[in-house]
Amino acid sequence: MKNEKIPYKIYLNENEMPNAWYNLRADMKQKPAPLLNPGTLEPMKAEELAGVFCEELIRQELDNDTAYFEIPEEIRNFYKMYRPSPLVRAYCLEEKLDTPAHIYYKFEGNNTSGSHKLNSAIAQAYYAKKQGLKGVTTETGAGQWGTALSMACSYFGLDCRVYMVKCSYEQKPFRREVMRTYGASVTPSPSTETEVGRKILAEHPNTTGSLGCAISEAVEKAVSSDGYRYVLGSVLNQVLLHQSVIGLETKAALDKYGVKPDIIIGCAGGGSNLGGLIAPFMGEKLRGEADYRIVAVEPASCPSFTRGVYAYDFCDTGMVCPLSKMYTLGSGFIPSANHAGGLRYHGMSSTLSELYHQGLMEAVSVKQTEVFEAAEYFARIEGILPAPESSHAIRAAIDEAVRCKETKEEKTIVFGLTGTGYFDMVAYEKFHNGEMNDSIPTDEELAVYRSQLPRVE
Amino acid sequence: MKNEKIPYKIYLNENEMPNAWYNLRADMKQKPAPLLNPGTLEPMKAEELAGVFCEELIRQELDNDTAYFEIPEEIRNFYKMYRPSPLVRAYCLEEKLDTPAHIYYKFEGNNTSGSHKLNSAIAQAYYAKKQGLKGVTTETGAGQWGTALSMACSYFGLDCRVYMVKCSYEQKPFRREVMRTYGASVTPSPSTETEVGRKILAEHPNTTGSLGCAISEAVEKAVSSDGYRYVLGSVLNQVLLHQSVIGLETKAALDKYGVKPDIIIGCAGGGSNLGGLIAPFMGEKLRGEADYRIVAVEPASCPSFTRGVYAYDFCDTGMVCPLSKMYTLGSGFIPSANHAGGLRYHGMSSTLSELYHQGLMEAVSVKQTEVFEAAEYFARIEGILPAPESSHAIRAAIDEAVRCKETKEEKTIVFGLTGTGYFDMVAYEKFHNGEMNDSIPTDEELAVYRSQLPRVE
Repeated sequence: MKNEKIPYKIYLNENEMPNAWYNLRADMKQKPAPLLNPGTLEPMKAEELAGVFCEELIRQELDNDTAYFEIPEEIRNFYKMYRPSPLVRAYCLEEKLDTPAHIYYKFEGNNTSGSHKLNSAIAQAYYAKKQGLKGVTTETGAGQWGTALSMACSYFGLDCRVYMVKCSYEQKPFRREVMRTYGASVTPSPSTETEVGRKILAEHPNTTGSLGCAISEAVEKAVSSDGYRYVLGSVLNQVLLHQSVIGLETKAALDKYGVKPDIIIGCAGGGSNLGGLIAPFMGEKLRGEADYRIVAVEPASCPSFTRGVYAYDFCDTGMVCPLSKMYTLGSGFIPSANHAGGLRYHGMSSTLSELYHQGLMEAVSVKQTEVFEAAEYFARIEGILPAPESSHAIRAAIDEAVRCKETKEEKTIVFGLTGTGYFDMVAYEKFHNGEMNDSIPTDEELAVYRSQLPRVE
Repeated sequence: MKNEKIPYKIYLNENEMPNAWYNLRADMKQKPAPLLNPGTLEPMKAEELAGVFCEELIRQELDNDTAYFEIPEEIRNFYKMYRPSPLVRAYCLEEKLDTPAHIYYKFEGNNTSGSHKLNSAIAQAYYAKKQGLKGVTTETGAGQWGTALSMACSYFGLDCRVYMVKCSYEQKPFRREVMRTYGASVTPSPSTETEVGRKILAEHPNTTGSLGCAISEAVEKAVSSDGYRYVLGSVLNQVLLHQSVIGLETKAALDKYGVKPDIIIGCAGGGSNLGGLIAPFMGEKLRGEADYRIVAVEPASCPSFTRGVYAYDFCDTGMVCPLSKMYTLGSGFIPSANHAGGLRYHGMSSTLSELYHQGLMEAVSVKQTEVFEAAEYFARIEGILPAPESSHAIRAAIDEAVRCKETKEEKTIVFGLTGTGYFDMVAYEKFHNGEMNDSIPTDEELAVYRSQLPRVE
């Protein structure tokens, strides 16, 4: 069954790594909707964003036309410390499933941040440094983004201030300690350091925090500190741009062996991994050069694509950020206890939202227990203990491969294995002890938050 | 300064991976001393070991003459899931140190067990399965070996029973949970499951366990259970044989670029990593084909090479194992609180001991705080958060590179980066909080344990 020509792991040579990021928006006829100023409801201009974001990143954020952005040499050198990441042929999984499908996964977990987040963190830190800033602020939920940004800032000698969702801060002291190793300051959110934090604490003294709330704090801190800007690890166009390195490497590796995928699968929280993985494939699709099934996988407990609405909404709880048009559950929505911290966001990348709206990609939602069943199965067969987030994609890939067995189709499935689960063992423990929460929001609950969406004509 | 021809990471192709393990002993004129039966003081025969170890592994253990053992295809296929491991050119570290030295490290941490231990675990599980056994028993301290063995047993469908040193079991619940994910049963040691465990508990009710004690329990369990054998992750000749894959890959990668190392550095606990890394280089040295400085690095708190004696000693606390001639601190010696769990063993590989005794390698000892200083420095520059064990080698490599700066010598330094420290964040936290214990044993203390060594003519 094994194709002798294709190794278990395809590593590109360093000279085969991409020299430019690919901007998917350049090939979209209908562009993603612009960010709006929540006061005027007018599209945000570069100068309005300049107090929050770095200049070059704003340029990348607002540019819907340039197809390729050269990757600066300093960033390419940093990439070489942990990239190219392997594209793995899952021979063992195929054999165990007894499927005619060919399964590949792009593994982004072989770096200390444990995920793909480093691809954008190093770019954002680079531009902040180049602009002469002292430091950056950000929020982190599961901790992968915060860790990645700490590593990137340490490399360029930037100060890094992380607001970590309080329940994560308390449940994941080791994540916090890794960030500390890289010299970052980590504050549990909501905190008394910011006005928005104090306000939230006054209203909800016992809150354990949320991503939306930590974003509000980080933005306020950046805006009110001299020489600081705010950076974000997902959702934004600039992040998808940087993450295109995942897809470009994947495509180069497949092309090297003449392999054309049929189905491309990625987990979706804010869209950073999915948007990056699919970028060059979606580009071909948009240009009419090829066709692929592209599948987003999200938690049933936080189903932005599959049960949300396509509308303008706030990106954060404190409502200090611009409005973004996206598939959203409403900025007040809080998902039930769910161990995929990176997939608990109420909204979604506006670019991916527009593509989904146009019918260019599909979405499925999966429940937590079936996700961890797939995670453990995969760990035992392929050797890698996956992050809960990544395991959403594993679940969907296995389901597709099993379908191929039933229909006897030799399809090629590619999925994104975004990271490792070494800091998620509390979640695995709950799974082993049968204590997973599989509850999903009711229609009534979703209707409440939907009714609170801002009214934008 | 950068040599354009050498990439940041050298990956061999799968067809360049070794097909055979190299047995260093074949090239030693003076062979390592044999294991002795503690009752008769006669060399252990294969049949005496057959109740404890798997047959093929005994053959490998006792064979001092065969230079190469073919790696079975099933093991080579498993290796391909996580090997070849990268040989990394530490360009960033060189630049930061401003040293003329060229620094390389062989990174074995990119697998879920987090270390090189998987190289031998999969071999031992394979031979156990081939012999038709039901399962294996073992002990684990830091947890890397236990995790590796759990993964290997899960792959071949073998039962895996791990005795985990009680203080590690309690301090590292996440390690335990990873093993559980791979289906292993994990018991804190000493336990009431074994006679030796009950005896130790009766004498020391509050003991938090030791590696020597956990070995005794695992051996007893194997010998008294039908269809079980005992497996060990270090010290033994068979383990060094399997770990030679590290050195063989390192040498093949260096040869590919025409690089000849001057200094080879590895941390040393029982010797599994060091013995594997240096194997082909030491082979050349033994055959008079090349010369290298080879340096073992051990904790100042557990200095077997640098302050131990070369003598026959028990391998375990319960004194149920054969006697081994090695550099030892005495089987009753317990090092002070030290976070490099993999380097807390009182003895050392008999092969490495004989090589050290013959003056073919050097040894240095380093204190814990200076080890963690090197670990954090390395993490910030090279991006990888290292295991405390591996950081001993980092410390020595940095010291050598700084010396090269002083002497203006362009030496090539290769060291073994055995694993990652993601499950060691408690240790990093203590370092950040200035709570590291740097105490070392006094001469008087060492004399006490030395006087308790078994008397062997």
